[in-house]
Amino acid sequence: MIGDHIWINGGLVRAEQAQISPSDRGFTLGDGLFETMLWTGDKVRFVDDHMARLACSADALGIALLVPVDAIAAGLAELGRDAERKPAALRLTLTRGSGPRGLAISENASAFVLATIAPHTPPTQPANLAIVAIKRNSGAPSALYKTLSYIDNIIALKQARALGADEAIVLGTTGNVACASSANIIIEYEGRALTPAIEDGALPGIVRGRLIKSGLVEVANISPAMLANCTQGALTNALVGVRGIAALDKRPIQTLEAWLTQLRSAL
Amino acid sequence: MIGDHIWINGGLVRAEQAQISPSDRGFTLGDGLFETMLWTGDKVRFVDDHMARLACSADALGIALLVPVDAIAAGLAELGRDAERKPAALRLTLTRGSGPRGLAISENASAFVLATIAPHTPPTQPANLAIVAIKRNSGAPSALYKTLSYIDNIIALKQARALGADEAIVLGTTGNVACASSANIIIEYEGRALTPAIEDGALPGIVRGRLIKSGLVEVANISPAMLANCTQGALTNALVGVRGIAALDKRPIQTLEAWLTQLRSAL
Repeated sequence: MIGDHIWINGGLVRAEQAQISPSDRGFTLGDGLFETMLWTGDKVRFVDDHMARLACSADALGIALLVPVDAIAAGLAELGRDAERKPAALRLTLTRGSGPRGLAISENASAFVLATIAPHTPPTQPANLAIVAIKRNSGAPSALYKTLSYIDNIIALKQARALGADEAIVLGTTGNVACASSANIIIEYEGRALTPAIEDGALPGIVRGRLIKSGLVEVANISPAMLANCTQGALTNALVGVRGIAALDKRPIQTLEAWLTQLRSAL
Repeated sequence: MIGDHIWINGGLVRAEQAQISPSDRGFTLGDGLFETMLWTGDKVRFVDDHMARLACSADALGIALLVPVDAIAAGLAELGRDAERKPAALRLTLTRGSGPRGLAISENASAFVLATIAPHTPPTQPANLAIVAIKRNSGAPSALYKTLSYIDNIIALKQARALGADEAIVLGTTGNVACASSANIIIEYEGRALTPAIEDGALPGIVRGRLIKSGLVEVANISPAMLANCTQGALTNALVGVRGIAALDKRPIQTLEAWLTQLRSAL
């Protein structure tokens, strides 16, 4: 963490005063959402995209936002002041709030929202990826939204590290490529820049969305065979932006800086 | 909750003194496990089975238990005293503890464990089940272990309720029946009592395990067609034990009390 503050339910408090209820469903059941955002030093990058995704996902899961997204965005900017004009990582957590035991959603649940800011040290090397055994549950809420239920992603990353890689390639339960443990994947295949489809389990990432909108990147069903024949590759997420891929399952690939620069220029 | 106490990391504290860190990975990433247990009024039912599953799952996820299971079991019994000899629901939550941001597992993570007790009102009617759209991620940690990453189960139950049922039948990504949102399923099919296989996404439930061990129930790959032709059915979990099924996807089934009694007698 940077500074002494945490933003909770609409206001800044001292970190030691932060109260999380033992019956908060974020804590007991992974029942909530999060956003990881880049504080550039003077603003939250792509803040409107993040707030739109948060609102849309909350709506899909039936979590009523008590603090409007404009107030959340203002709170994030307040937290950013603790970073003293240096880039930092903002994390926003939204839960369904406290509730009685059991999975049933209570009518009068009251959402809980919390944000923190932490130092951000972007990776300086291109990524080395390995396909892991864990699949992403294509079509399920855990794959469609950035929920707090992240155990499969955590263990996917652990499996990738055990294989000597620094990120995982996770296939969807459809058999096609979905995404990395905490990034989207873009590959160059037969001269086109492709990214996995939502139906295959790709998380609708903010940077991914911007690249698709720019027209530079197309959505496709990417089979493992296509991945094995790609000519360049990149990982994208809100914190790192666009990061080159140096190896896929121990096969070195030549990802050119010019290609990455072209992608970055579309953001 | 019953009483004023929560058991945390080895001791009872007043509920208002319970401190959950905003960087606890249970809260931020669903990175942990839970057990729901029945306090019978004088003991924790099947406590050894629950502690064995917890220890085994924690080991598989690489979470080092700092409080030994014997001490956890003793803590649960201490909490049980607040229930004043009445049946109650115990909930134990184990998380990987606090950590820096990101999914990578820190070498020096220090597990966090918390238990609460709540009133328990067992259902008095047999269950009405509906097959929901959400699949269970067969083979993934979220299906193999009782993790805190429960969003797919929550939304599966929500979908079942929207279909007018009171519990969900969740198919695994293998296409076979896996389990309900918070129970295992047993069906009578061609005269045999069958329960879905772990490889199809069944949670290794405590009551399920006891029934298999008793020889009364066999593990099988249960297709939706087999489900559609079953003659009796039951839901099992640690809190409710064995509960009859009255309807499957709006098809009434005649589950006999004698069959349920036979299953219960094997526990």
